[in-house]
Amino acid sequence: MRILGIDPGLATLGYGVIDTAGNRMTLITAGAVITTPDMITPDRLRSIRSQISQLLQLYRPEQIAFEELFFSKNITTGMSVSMARGVTICTCAEYTDKLYEYTPMQIKQAVVGYGKADKHQIQEMVKMTLGLPDIIRPDDAADAVACAITHASSGLLREQFRMK
Amino acid sequence: MRILGIDPGLATLGYGVIDTAGNRMTLITAGAVITTPDMITPDRLRSIRSQISQLLQLYRPEQIAFEELFFSKNITTGMSVSMARGVTICTCAEYTDKLYEYTPMQIKQAVVGYGKADKHQIQEMVKMTLGLPDIIRPDDAADAVACAITHASSGLLREQFRMK
Repeated sequence: MRILGIDPGLATLGYGVIDTAGNRMTLITAGAVITTPDMITPDRLRSIRSQISQLLQLYRPEQIAFEELFFSKNITTGMSVSMARGVTICTCAEYTDKLYEYTPMQIKQAVVGYGKADKHQIQEMVKMTLGLPDIIRPDDAADAVACAITHASSGLLREQFRMK
Repeated sequence: MRILGIDPGLATLGYGVIDTAGNRMTLITAGAVITTPDMITPDRLRSIRSQISQLLQLYRPEQIAFEELFFSKNITTGMSVSMARGVTICTCAEYTDKLYEYTPMQIKQAVVGYGKADKHQIQEMVKMTLGLPDIIRPDDAADAVACAITHASSGLLREQFRMK
């Protein structure tokens, strides 16, 4: 099964595609969709939609796993990221209804086995799980791949993580 | 000139279309795009995109004016509304680059002449300005029409309200 993992964002949206066969997981691609602050917001959102559409057409994932957002501090940043997240979810929802989401803690628990793992531990475990020569950069791409791995590992529990 | 006014939202998105010729403004249509909480979020966002696309194709506005969002209280509601707002802006940005936004205070100032006017005063002034037999319902549709009227009245100042 082919899974697309997404770590949503406005400036940097991480993505990663893995294939699973039995217990084996293979990395197909990982990277980031970037938009810069010199672009006006409508253009940034349009660019995100267009780049996500291209990813979907190019890699044809069967299921898509999102990292859930939590905010505690900056409400303005939260609103911008939420706008980008809305555009991303909408674009994916037009492509498939197999959308799932996982909290950062669920991802850490699934990938490292410890809900409070740090970024470095996640990157190392993603590298080991997929048998890569090096850690995935940037961070957001590694997070997105970790989210895809979490979904691949969720097995029978999967439907409980379907996006509401 | 034909102007579409939008008061963004996830559950209720108000819209209104007016035509302007000299000092004269005419109401073409007003209403609300509704999505209900029994729908999952991806479907609500997809529905909003589809309904906004239909409005754009049907009424072919030349410029679009959004009411800006401000949040102080509920961050969860704020994130949901921001997702819907992102989808709406993205859909409109694919149609035109003539997007503008106005704060609630600017709209009240432009329509009623008083930045702290209440909903009832706005509805009455929208009704009078457009020579309608009755006030516009629901509230969100009236707010969207007020936003379109504000844009129509902004004249030489207009470029300062272009969405960033």
